[in-house]
Amino acid sequence: MKKYTSVRDLVCAPDAVKEALSLKQSQDIAKSYTKDKVLCLLFFNNSLRTRLSTELAGIKLGMKVMVMQIGESGWALEFEDGAIMNSTKAEHIKEAAAVVSQYADVIGIRSFPTLTDKEADINDRVMSAFVAHATVPVFSMEGAVEHPLQALADAITIAENCTYRPKVVLSWAPHPRALPHAVANSFALMMQATDVDFVITHPKGYELNPDVVGDSKVEYDQDKAFEGADFVYVKNWSQFADYGAVSTGLDHWMITPEKLGSAKFMHCLPLRRNVIATDAVLDSEQSLVIEQANNRTYSAAYIIQKLLES
Amino acid sequence: MKKYTSVRDLVCAPDAVKEALSLKQSQDIAKSYTKDKVLCLLFFNNSLRTRLSTELAGIKLGMKVMVMQIGESGWALEFEDGAIMNSTKAEHIKEAAAVVSQYADVIGIRSFPTLTDKEADINDRVMSAFVAHATVPVFSMEGAVEHPLQALADAITIAENCTYRPKVVLSWAPHPRALPHAVANSFALMMQATDVDFVITHPKGYELNPDVVGDSKVEYDQDKAFEGADFVYVKNWSQFADYGAVSTGLDHWMITPEKLGSAKFMHCLPLRRNVIATDAVLDSEQSLVIEQANNRTYSAAYIIQKLLES
Amino acid sequence: MKKYTSVRDLVCAPDAVKEALSLKQSQDIAKSYTKDKVLCLLFFNNSLRTRLSTELAGIKLGMKVMVMQIGESGWALEFEDGAIMNSTKAEHIKEAAAVVSQYADVIGIRSFPTLTDKEADINDRVMSAFVAHATVPVFSMEGAVEHPLQALADAITIAENCTYRPKVVLSWAPHPRALPHAVANSFALMMQATDVDFVITHPKGYELNPDVVGDSKVEYDQDKAFEGADFVYVKNWSQFADYGAVSTGLDHWMITPEKLGSAKFMHCLPLRRNVIATDAVLDSEQSLVIEQANNRTYSAAYIIQKLLES
Repeated sequence: MKKYTSVRDLVCAPDAVKEALSLKQSQDIAKSYTKDKVLCLLFFNNSLRTRLSTELAGIKLGMKVMVMQIGESGWALEFEDGAIMNSTKAEHIKEAAAVVSQYADVIGIRSFPTLTDKEADINDRVMSAFVAHATVPVFSMEGAVEHPLQALADAITIAENCTYRPKVVLSWAPHPRALPHAVANSFALMMQATDVDFVITHPKGYELNPDVVGDSKVEYDQDKAFEGADFVYVKNWSQFADYGAVSTGLDHWMITPEKLGSAKFMHCLPLRRNVIATDAVLDSEQSLVIEQANNRTYSAAYIIQKLLES
Repeated sequence: MKKYTSVRDLVCAPDAVKEALSLKQSQDIAKSYTKDKVLCLLFFNNSLRTRLSTELAGIKLGMKVMVMQIGESGWALEFEDGAIMNSTKAEHIKEAAAVVSQYADVIGIRSFPTLTDKEADINDRVMSAFVAHATVPVFSMEGAVEHPLQALADAITIAENCTYRPKVVLSWAPHPRALPHAVANSFALMMQATDVDFVITHPKGYELNPDVVGDSKVEYDQDKAFEGADFVYVKNWSQFADYGAVSTGLDHWMITPEKLGSAKFMHCLPLRRNVIATDAVLDSEQSLVIEQANNRTYSAAYIIQKLLES
Repeated sequence: MKKYTSVRDLVCAPDAVKEALSLKQSQDIAKSYTKDKVLCLLFFNNSLRTRLSTELAGIKLGMKVMVMQIGESGWALEFEDGAIMNSTKAEHIKEAAAVVSQYADVIGIRSFPTLTDKEADINDRVMSAFVAHATVPVFSMEGAVEHPLQALADAITIAENCTYRPKVVLSWAPHPRALPHAVANSFALMMQATDVDFVITHPKGYELNPDVVGDSKVEYDQDKAFEGADFVYVKNWSQFADYGAVSTGLDHWMITPEKLGSAKFMHCLPLRRNVIATDAVLDSEQSLVIEQANNRTYSAAYIIQKLLES
């Protein structure tokens, strides 16, 4: 594996899930080719879970981890070829990626979408540019289009909690702000790449990028979608067609114990209680959210190991 | 020890002082149960001494240290049970504490008081919530009510500089801003828990929380309080009864060599020269402030070790 | 070596270049006197290359690295002796430097000039104060007057790319903002200390500090200066005499392939493409900028090792 910025970069998703699970069960996961290697994590956006779990993955692999919080204003990068850089952008991605590559054996990048510039977002501009210009492997700690470490952690969590081919529902849920599509996109791609019965449900207008949805079943009736579900993966996202738009009056999409039935509840966190789902859902034994967060460490460890192996 | 968010969490303060001092005198303090364990430090407020000394304590114990600067705006946590989180709070403390617990073997938290919401502060809301919801030991790197690592470092410093039962005075001193009570509170509790002759002195109106003062002697006349003092511990704090209030016209409470006499001078730093105390006090051999800061490393190392031991 | 805040602190620059190059060629550079020692990096200003390369140098030396992003507002230090600190400055440099010295074996400081207070800048106030009050060795990660780690990396890069006594030109180039003199100053001092034919070229009014220029040849005609050049080192800086001033109408100082001829192109980065130099220059094999950044790791490793050795 040369990069991991999309679930599509996995050669075989079920194998990845199995191997990540076996890392989780091992005491010592440091390999000769990971030990004392340098992991550089660059955050263009805030992070808690991703920051700590990815740093911890590096630590468990015996690596040296360098973390940079860059922030949106702190390091304005130019991405256009041929740009005359006489304004606010102080450095071109060509130099930035080449330079950081010299200081690290593998680079993790977090960079959120604008939710206003659809073309830049669809092209995952920051992530793609790092991949293009870096000379060491790059992985995504959530980009404009995908959050592939999250999706791998989610698949691990499903595998741990199921011995048969499950029905998995990805459900939109309410949120007071306009949110990215990355988590939903990567989860959908991951479900398509593993052996599950997968359904997506959301209000009209919240259709995900058709390139991501592919042949997946879309059911606009949330109740119908939830029938016989083993896992309900919940996430808010803003509209894709009318890019970044949100609408009101959809509070009834919140997950309740009644809706959930006997299904397991999943969410990537952070989660707004009594908006996305009720306390009763979160505090029940059906909630897997804490274990999903735990599995972030092993999805990151698996990916970093794979990137260094090659 | 399950947590250390108050000096009251020490089973026996004099023993803690002795054992921390013996750590200071050891070359190698890493234990089998501290080596390669993960220490996560979460800063909701700025820090210099606490950040560096606690990270160094982790390093000396052979631990892996993950430091997060969260900031007040960066990660708005909800603390209320049953809250409908449709406003600015993105995550509930229940999830946050449970998630971070999975990434670390012990967690340090810094979170200052509001100085406006007395009830939230008295309950040390952030710290208490982490203790309640974390599944690994939590210690305070200064909370709303106490700064117990500082107090232990102070007690170490007194022990190093005294072979008999000393007279120790905690004196209020002027400052241009309204400051928290945490350092004064923890120092008072620590002096009550060790064998010293302890006196508190401050202007009328600056009485500390009666629950903290307990039976300690309070003397409003600073000169009288200082008579025969071996150690003068100086700190500003705002009013407790009229919560967070400050008054002017108290510049004569500044510490001078004349007031200090032959006593040792102590302060937790940072310190405003010629406001809290004159240059002559700070630059004299009677000042212990630099050694107090040094002892922060050993108070942190002692506490972290104790938390991991159990 | 007790400190490294100026190229002038090198006893013998050519020897430093040779030894740093041999570090670069070694597999394992950790020494008994660097292993497990603590390197503390304090950033009063933003940094990417310096932060990562210096942290990496510490890692390669087997050190424990503690990084503090302090920021301009975060930790307002008082530098004046005798100041009455009743305003915005919360801590005096005397305490700050003494305290940090207890937590580290060597301290790196980054602190940019004001470009408005010429006297404070010329005296490199923050850096000098840390050197004066720290009790462990201090090195500069760019101060108000010099960027000596950059200059050593530059000299390494020249040595790697030349087997004879080269002609080296330091050329001013355009930039939309007023920039410091530190990189140009340290490069000039380094060229004076090594065996090269050195010429400085810049528009009238952009004369560097005469104390730095010394006997170096200054040629106002850029074309003439570039004749027969082996290395062209490019950098923008603001005016020194009319401190911090900038002027317009100098875009023709941008470096083009025509101007460069067969010379190697050098710049410390970040670099504004098509303002400082054209894409054709940057993307040619004559550009050494990426290797210069790589050599920052070895210049830092050499200096830190030297400071710990003594």
